[in-house]
Amino acid sequence: MDGSGRPRARDIGIEIGIMPTGESNSICDMPGLKVGHVMLMKGDGPLIRGQGPVRTGITAVIPTDDAPHEKLPAAVDVINGFGKSVGLMQITELGEIETPILLTNTLNVGKVSQHLVEWIIEQHPHIASVNPVVMECNDSNLNDIWGMHVGREQVFQALETAGNSISEGCVGAGAGMRSFGFKSGIGTASRQVKCGEKTYTLGAIVLNNMGGAGDLRIDGVPIGRMLVEDRSKTDDPPGSIIMIVGTDAPMIPLSLRRIARRASFGLARTGGMASHGSGDIALAFSTVPLVEARTEDTAMVAGQITQFFRACIESVEEAIINSLLRAHRVVGRDGNTANAISIDKVVKILQEKYRAF
Amino acid sequence: MDGSGRPRARDIGIEIGIMPTGESNSICDMPGLKVGHVMLMKGDGPLIRGQGPVRTGITAVIPTDDAPHEKLPAAVDVINGFGKSVGLMQITELGEIETPILLTNTLNVGKVSQHLVEWIIEQHPHIASVNPVVMECNDSNLNDIWGMHVGREQVFQALETAGNSISEGCVGAGAGMRSFGFKSGIGTASRQVKCGEKTYTLGAIVLNNMGGAGDLRIDGVPIGRMLVEDRSKTDDPPGSIIMIVGTDAPMIPLSLRRIARRASFGLARTGGMASHGSGDIALAFSTVPLVEARTEDTAMVAGQITQFFRACIESVEEAIINSLLRAHRVVGRDGNTANAISIDKVVKILQEKYRAF
Amino acid sequence: MDGSGRPRARDIGIEIGIMPTGESNSICDMPGLKVGHVMLMKGDGPLIRGQGPVRTGITAVIPTDDAPHEKLPAAVDVINGFGKSVGLMQITELGEIETPILLTNTLNVGKVSQHLVEWIIEQHPHIASVNPVVMECNDSNLNDIWGMHVGREQVFQALETAGNSISEGCVGAGAGMRSFGFKSGIGTASRQVKCGEKTYTLGAIVLNNMGGAGDLRIDGVPIGRMLVEDRSKTDDPPGSIIMIVGTDAPMIPLSLRRIARRASFGLARTGGMASHGSGDIALAFSTVPLVEARTEDTAMVAGQITQFFRACIESVEEAIINSLLRAHRVVGRDGNTANAISIDKVVKILQEKYRAF
Amino acid sequence: MDGSGRPRARDIGIEIGIMPTGESNSICDMPGLKVGHVMLMKGDGPLIRGQGPVRTGITAVIPTDDAPHEKLPAAVDVINGFGKSVGLMQITELGEIETPILLTNTLNVGKVSQHLVEWIIEQHPHIASVNPVVMECNDSNLNDIWGMHVGREQVFQALETAGNSISEGCVGAGAGMRSFGFKSGIGTASRQVKCGEKTYTLGAIVLNNMGGAGDLRIDGVPIGRMLVEDRSKTDDPPGSIIMIVGTDAPMIPLSLRRIARRASFGLARTGGMASHGSGDIALAFSTVPLVEARTEDTAMVAGQITQFFRACIESVEEAIINSLLRAHRVVGRDGNTANAISIDKVVKILQEKYRAF
Repeated sequence: MDGSGRPRARDIGIEIGIMPTGESNSICDMPGLKVGHVMLMKGDGPLIRGQGPVRTGITAVIPTDDAPHEKLPAAVDVINGFGKSVGLMQITELGEIETPILLTNTLNVGKVSQHLVEWIIEQHPHIASVNPVVMECNDSNLNDIWGMHVGREQVFQALETAGNSISEGCVGAGAGMRSFGFKSGIGTASRQVKCGEKTYTLGAIVLNNMGGAGDLRIDGVPIGRMLVEDRSKTDDPPGSIIMIVGTDAPMIPLSLRRIARRASFGLARTGGMASHGSGDIALAFSTVPLVEARTEDTAMVAGQITQFFRACIESVEEAIINSLLRAHRVVGRDGNTANAISIDKVVKILQEKYRAF
Repeated sequence: MDGSGRPRARDIGIEIGIMPTGESNSICDMPGLKVGHVMLMKGDGPLIRGQGPVRTGITAVIPTDDAPHEKLPAAVDVINGFGKSVGLMQITELGEIETPILLTNTLNVGKVSQHLVEWIIEQHPHIASVNPVVMECNDSNLNDIWGMHVGREQVFQALETAGNSISEGCVGAGAGMRSFGFKSGIGTASRQVKCGEKTYTLGAIVLNNMGGAGDLRIDGVPIGRMLVEDRSKTDDPPGSIIMIVGTDAPMIPLSLRRIARRASFGLARTGGMASHGSGDIALAFSTVPLVEARTEDTAMVAGQITQFFRACIESVEEAIINSLLRAHRVVGRDGNTANAISIDKVVKILQEKYRAF
Repeated sequence: MDGSGRPRARDIGIEIGIMPTGESNSICDMPGLKVGHVMLMKGDGPLIRGQGPVRTGITAVIPTDDAPHEKLPAAVDVINGFGKSVGLMQITELGEIETPILLTNTLNVGKVSQHLVEWIIEQHPHIASVNPVVMECNDSNLNDIWGMHVGREQVFQALETAGNSISEGCVGAGAGMRSFGFKSGIGTASRQVKCGEKTYTLGAIVLNNMGGAGDLRIDGVPIGRMLVEDRSKTDDPPGSIIMIVGTDAPMIPLSLRRIARRASFGLARTGGMASHGSGDIALAFSTVPLVEARTEDTAMVAGQITQFFRACIESVEEAIINSLLRAHRVVGRDGNTANAISIDKVVKILQEKYRAF
Repeated sequence: MDGSGRPRARDIGIEIGIMPTGESNSICDMPGLKVGHVMLMKGDGPLIRGQGPVRTGITAVIPTDDAPHEKLPAAVDVINGFGKSVGLMQITELGEIETPILLTNTLNVGKVSQHLVEWIIEQHPHIASVNPVVMECNDSNLNDIWGMHVGREQVFQALETAGNSISEGCVGAGAGMRSFGFKSGIGTASRQVKCGEKTYTLGAIVLNNMGGAGDLRIDGVPIGRMLVEDRSKTDDPPGSIIMIVGTDAPMIPLSLRRIARRASFGLARTGGMASHGSGDIALAFSTVPLVEARTEDTAMVAGQITQFFRACIESVEEAIINSLLRAHRVVGRDGNTANAISIDKVVKILQEKYRAF
């Protein structure tokens, strides 16, 4: 279910943008960064609140390997604030994150937040205060969201099994997500940015649960309208998206806020529109603590930030496409079904039309 | 413990500002608005995490009587975002609140938030989404905050026993709070605002947990330095404050944002400074749903909003003073003690100095 | 030079989005709204500061016909604040505009602002204070921007000759603008939005001076890379864009802020990325004064705002494309040349590739 | 007229706060920082627009001596955005200032802004873009503001005669300002902040044109009500205030934004309330370019920022009091008169009441 057997965008010739990707073309290209997923898929049939069917999970993004509680520069852009994520106010005030970032479903935020604090305290018993960051999308269409099935066990497992491997699609928090009328989930991508004599990496990982049927664009090409017959349902596309952008370039929080702002440009290019009922949020962080940055480097990065803007836009756009391509079909509660996007159809359209470009 | 036996500011001749108070000089002057408190005080001696001693509670502010889920215009001003309150992002995005506002301690926010959702759903089973608003201060100096002792029972009780009576000091969420070196808690005050031919009410209620020893001012008079011997501890006053301001004047969210901004002026006049580690937040709402407002009235209120600014500043300032005057001495965990401010000393200083003005 | 002889997007089969356009597919579809342009094109050859060559102008957007000083609900989204526009702070504070909106070049903002005040005062001598709104892009590549050639005469002329006709391309403030490696200028488009039993209009007008060579997308199709040979110059696309969105639907400022936020989605779809040195700003207004709105209508519009988001995104995207298609070639100072985008090439690519979709 | 003959707060025993002042107790305590004033006082009698009487001026704050165009970290807090200052949007976006900060009257902002650009270009002819920062209050009660009497000559003079001497009251832009029913103008103060082994300075300079008659507080003591007989005029206090805070401590823009937010706390303590029609703005900067800061120092300062908050609040409060005490009586246009606050009365009240504290 972790995207195995299904291609990423570049596997079928879709090359978003003009910048070089990182080695694994994922947020894991940043040294020390780890991602962990725990997915819960059990039961079938009609919804029984508290029992299932369960189609949900949790994804952990740990920015730096050896120091989960180290404070890193960070910033948030709230594109549409119709959401329930926690921890963002303090990031905005202090310009830093101090915990891993967890992604889960909407109603599980409170529980997951609490268990994240417990995990931090187990590792750092002296800590008196901590600002857990938990972000969410709503998987209630497929999942017994009311059961709040992600508990302490899953939180700890996601954090402790996190690694550098790339899983996409129906993994972790992506288990029950939908996008543009198809099954979606987790996606990631990365870009390399040359800045003076250094080469930095910027990577994105998204939890994608947004987009009206028919609105999908792949590298701009309005492919959605060819895949979906009935566009009348596009009037009010539901859902939301969480976009996390990390870089190993040294940046002050203000620069990261500008980066975060551009995540919505990548979102827009896929056909997303941050509809009314959507909680669309971008979070950007640097893996370089302010105190360890060379200020000459920070200044050079700030001066050449347009390259990072472009890297952010391209990475987010490609991560969203990956979150769709890699997701398998899921049948959820009450028989609600999210079909995978047809790779064959996408490839056929691409071969006939897009390759010509 | 609910302030009985201890005076409010006006009982001892302290008249903050120049505007007339509402009838009860509290946020309950607004028709239909209710406040509920549940306080938990049990156990003594050394801290045993999960057991106690318990010095905490919950306070519920229900803006309108007969329709707890009606959406009301609202706005937030984050003075210092070093805090863990939830629900503010959506208020800022949509300009409305849709639940009662709950106040509790920092680590209890997740649990209380969840039980608030349950309470809403019990009353409105058809609801698919709701944005609970829970705000907090940290009572860990006196309370076993790690025990998260406020649960479903207390949340429901606070909501269901809420009424129009005024309790201040060590009530509800105020049980374990401290301010300016003294015991504090909940305080409230209100003002009447004439606008055209109408008279509106604006009321404030605060959960006060901020202020360095020696920094206290009463009606501006720097009384703190006369009550506290050692000012050297004022270097980094801890704590935080939640200020809720309600009005029955019709206002669009933008006007309420401007009102909320002035709450920090009332805070400043008491000697508060929103220190680094403090989560200082103001929330303002109108009890008039946008759709029910007469636009002529809304426009007139917006044009004469300076009067509401003054009412907000005066109400917040007086509410903070009330939260101190009315609070009894509390001995908490590990024998930590918060003394009540001495009414006798305050009165003496006032008679000798302040009354002369 | 006003776009005559050159097609709009729909004239060559480019249909952005899925919503119906307004009657003239321009911001002038809103009753009473007027647009005025004055363009200054004189001199050739090398730059002599203060003399020329002059390739600049001014564009006036007058939201409501008969009451230029009526206060209308408005909001601003600063996408990238590297710019010199004036009047935005007060719009954000008060949620209203009270003057026509003028567009001109960067260095002319001060002068134009002053003459706008003079024009207001001539019509309303009793006015003691007014907040002029003047926004800008930088036309120094083609124009003697240092000469500040737009003066009182041009300001008054733009305001007094404003009407309902649609001019695009090299008109008004668009005289010296460039975009995606081509000549650009002014563009406009509109959409109809059904909301309950009413049909509202939302229109956009842009002053477009942004975009790296090769980055252009038309309806998402990455056409830019086929029109430009050398993409190496795209590293730091210069320039900026001003996007003005108006609607005759009743909205409170908060709703207009949400609309303004979506303008950047339309921008992103064309290949724009709000690069570092760019001043990218969206301003949204409603032509319905708050006091005249029926609150039931305002509430219904707020609840169905996703349709207005889509209308905004589509209108902005199409207006940007129009600003390119309609612009003629201009040779400016020092022989600097901005070529028009080749309609033939665009049509050919569209016929071969795009029409297939 | 420059405050000579009139005392500063400390000269008559008013000691605001608890922190030590800088050597000169002014913003000039920061090495290299210079302030320049040019005041225009001519003519008497009835207003003839364009001729006078003139009661206005300009004040220049040059943050660093030898490099007027060096970029310094900066941030803005718009307390009330009902104003016409320019340059703030870019400060917020980029977190830096790149010109001296000029203060003048409302209608002179455009002209002064343009001449500031000219001055920069004369010194740095290679500069292609610059963001002038000009802030304002409205002196139309005493001054022929419509004449825009501050021109190129005065701008250049203020910049070129700037030095380290402290002038307060009716100097520079303060010529025509009023506050709390009295004449006011420019005021300044400073504090020393110990942080680790270093001692930093934080200084404030204000252009004070706000406050209702009767609302004045000196060190919190509500002295205004004893100096003014008729408080009925306090309903809508007009005016505005510009507060500039500088420090030689290294800070990122985010920390400076937090500092700037506390300026309004100092304002509130004097009785100011940022009334509806007021343009109240705080700007904070560090004289240490980001690239020159030692990151260990920056981190330590950020961790101990509460001391800087206190220094900001105390400095702003004292600067406002100085702006009143030091201002002479001025008779302006149409015989409009602003009386100086009576030092004798203030001293008498202080001796009888305040000293007792």
